[in-house]
Amino acid sequence: MATKHLFLLPGDGIGPEAMAEVKKLISAMNDKLGSGFTTEDGLVGGCAYDAHGAAISDADMEKAMAADAVLFGAVGGPKWDAVPYEVRPEAGLLRLRKDMELFANLRPAICYPALAASSSLKQEVVEGLDILIVRELTGGVYFGEPKQIIDLGNGQKRGIDTQVYDTFEIERISGVAFELARTRKNHVTSMEKRNVMKSGVLWNEVVTQTHKARYSDVKLDHMLADAGGMQLVRWPKQFDVIVTDNLFGDMLSDIAAMLTGSIGMLPSASLGAPDVKTKKRKALYEPVHGSAPDIAGKGIANPIAMIASFAMCLRYSFGMVDEADRVESAIAAVLDAGLRTKDIMSDGMTEVGTVQMGDAIIAKF
Amino acid sequence: MATKHLFLLPGDGIGPEAMAEVKKLISAMNDKLGSGFTTEDGLVGGCAYDAHGAAISDADMEKAMAADAVLFGAVGGPKWDAVPYEVRPEAGLLRLRKDMELFANLRPAICYPALAASSSLKQEVVEGLDILIVRELTGGVYFGEPKQIIDLGNGQKRGIDTQVYDTFEIERISGVAFELARTRKNHVTSMEKRNVMKSGVLWNEVVTQTHKARYSDVKLDHMLADAGGMQLVRWPKQFDVIVTDNLFGDMLSDIAAMLTGSIGMLPSASLGAPDVKTKKRKALYEPVHGSAPDIAGKGIANPIAMIASFAMCLRYSFGMVDEADRVESAIAAVLDAGLRTKDIMSDGMTEVGTVQMGDAIIAKF
Ligand SMILES: CC(C)[C@H](C(=O)O)[C@@H](O)C(=O)O
Ligand SMILES: CC(C)[C@H](C(=O)O)[C@@H](O)C(=O)O
Repeated sequence: MATKHLFLLPGDGIGPEAMAEVKKLISAMNDKLGSGFTTEDGLVGGCAYDAHGAAISDADMEKAMAADAVLFGAVGGPKWDAVPYEVRPEAGLLRLRKDMELFANLRPAICYPALAASSSLKQEVVEGLDILIVRELTGGVYFGEPKQIIDLGNGQKRGIDTQVYDTFEIERISGVAFELARTRKNHVTSMEKRNVMKSGVLWNEVVTQTHKARYSDVKLDHMLADAGGMQLVRWPKQFDVIVTDNLFGDMLSDIAAMLTGSIGMLPSASLGAPDVKTKKRKALYEPVHGSAPDIAGKGIANPIAMIASFAMCLRYSFGMVDEADRVESAIAAVLDAGLRTKDIMSDGMTEVGTVQMGDAIIAKF
Repeated sequence: MATKHLFLLPGDGIGPEAMAEVKKLISAMNDKLGSGFTTEDGLVGGCAYDAHGAAISDADMEKAMAADAVLFGAVGGPKWDAVPYEVRPEAGLLRLRKDMELFANLRPAICYPALAASSSLKQEVVEGLDILIVRELTGGVYFGEPKQIIDLGNGQKRGIDTQVYDTFEIERISGVAFELARTRKNHVTSMEKRNVMKSGVLWNEVVTQTHKARYSDVKLDHMLADAGGMQLVRWPKQFDVIVTDNLFGDMLSDIAAMLTGSIGMLPSASLGAPDVKTKKRKALYEPVHGSAPDIAGKGIANPIAMIASFAMCLRYSFGMVDEADRVESAIAAVLDAGLRTKDIMSDGMTEVGTVQMGDAIIAKF
């Protein structure tokens, strides 16, 4: 039987609290369904820096590379605001993405019916919202060189970052977007700034070619990224799949997440290319939210995004579609029953803590 | 007496229709108040390309440099989608910004009470909203070199853009933000991605130093740009002045604009440094909206953003604060009276065209 080995990187802030609820769910699945998951814990982010001076150790990187999937919590906090750039908490996440070649970041923005009212947007604008942002994750300005600060003398410095995209990188990420669109509403919107950026010109060109060559059955639109951001706020339901680069994807997926009423709800999957022999993709799953240091350790963090990330793991890494559906239904059921963590609390609902929320979801599973 | 010479660049799409309403207002001010404006028209964008193969001619660039202020409409449209990158319509606007050294782009996002209901956001989230985005406009990834597409052979190309910021650029734009904050709620939020970008690290450092050295009376916050985008959508009233770079400013100001219910309402000012001798700043004023080719020529475009841009021109280029206030009050009065162009039409209001809207504002002036 194929292994189901999960490497768990809870990280900092609310990461460990949220991960603890996933661990309970994994145990329950092993006990009740004989799912056969094995797990091991590692360190990433500030806690890894504290333990061994790097945002992730080489030993943990090796474990991440060898695992069938990685579950990642969140990193960072004011404690590490002044550590050197190269070992800042985020460097651990960026190394995982780069070394595992996780080029495809899938960020669904789904509005749970029970939460439509808690969005800052009007209910009719977000109710039933279901869009998927496909963000390129190993290229662009995040990794391009030169990336440096130069001392020019006279008290002047120069900060430089480089946005770089090659044809093959745009081809493979748009391929993922088109494939996923076929399982949804068959509509892809590609976003760049071709009116200002040469990488945007190339992006537009390659997406258009890829579409023509292999995916002409899918509806394709192009939008400038700034206009796309506006349209997300104006009428997000016009979108099905959005494909965009690393930096625009960072901004646009956070905005899309916020439309749904709570960033504490939303999962993401970061996938590599299928292995030529085994067909397996390297994969990392993480909530869209950050480490929320202000509420860490209080037992009030919302574990749903982390649990929903595990559901994506079941679906994409293990083909356990039924189980993934059951986790997602359990989340919806608990929300329908009126349970809310503090971040999504509203009148007439029952406020619960992290552990109670996790227990309730497992009970409904 | 000082000259008041305006160089008008209506551009493409709805640009000329909107500019026509400003011209009427200028005539009215000259006739009734003896304001003494002189004007001259030029070409920018697609129409300039059609006329002489460049997005703006050298002759018109000289006129823009010599004018007391430039009023700019909008550029672009499907007709010019395939023209070479170097002469695309946007190149005219980018050359104006760069050659005139208009480093400070001021984008107010104000929610007119009469329009609060037409936002996609809940009324309580946007009612009374008044934020000012101060966007750096002559640096960053818009202008950094290398900016090119390289042919790598084997069907592979590489698109490159370069994000560059020098200390002095960050210093002067944050100075503008702090100065303006002092005339408002005394609160600046600086946004970058210092966790990923070296230019973000430098941005954060220089804003912090500038604050400490010269503006410690102003409240300063730092936010990551992705989190900032989310916070804009979640609870925009937490902000007063936002200062950010060229590309983040492009995205964030468009999102802020959309919060207010209509992008057709919002003006912007792009300012240079004060001349050492005359103290005058070079300046260009333009609506935040684009050329909207789909509705061009139909007489239904909303001229308010263009007229409000002229109000900013009165305020910032000519110190005509009273007149600027009167234009802004006239806009609010016309909205209160229920007049709406198609883009902001809602139940029970009176739909009017571009010309009627312009006339009504001039009548209330
Ligand atoms: C933590 C940070 C490096 C990261 C990013 O910018 O990609 C985060 O914002 C995200 O979206 O996953
Ligand atoms: C037209 C385009 C070049 C421009 C920009 O990207 O700056 C526009 O989007 C803006 O915000 O003024």
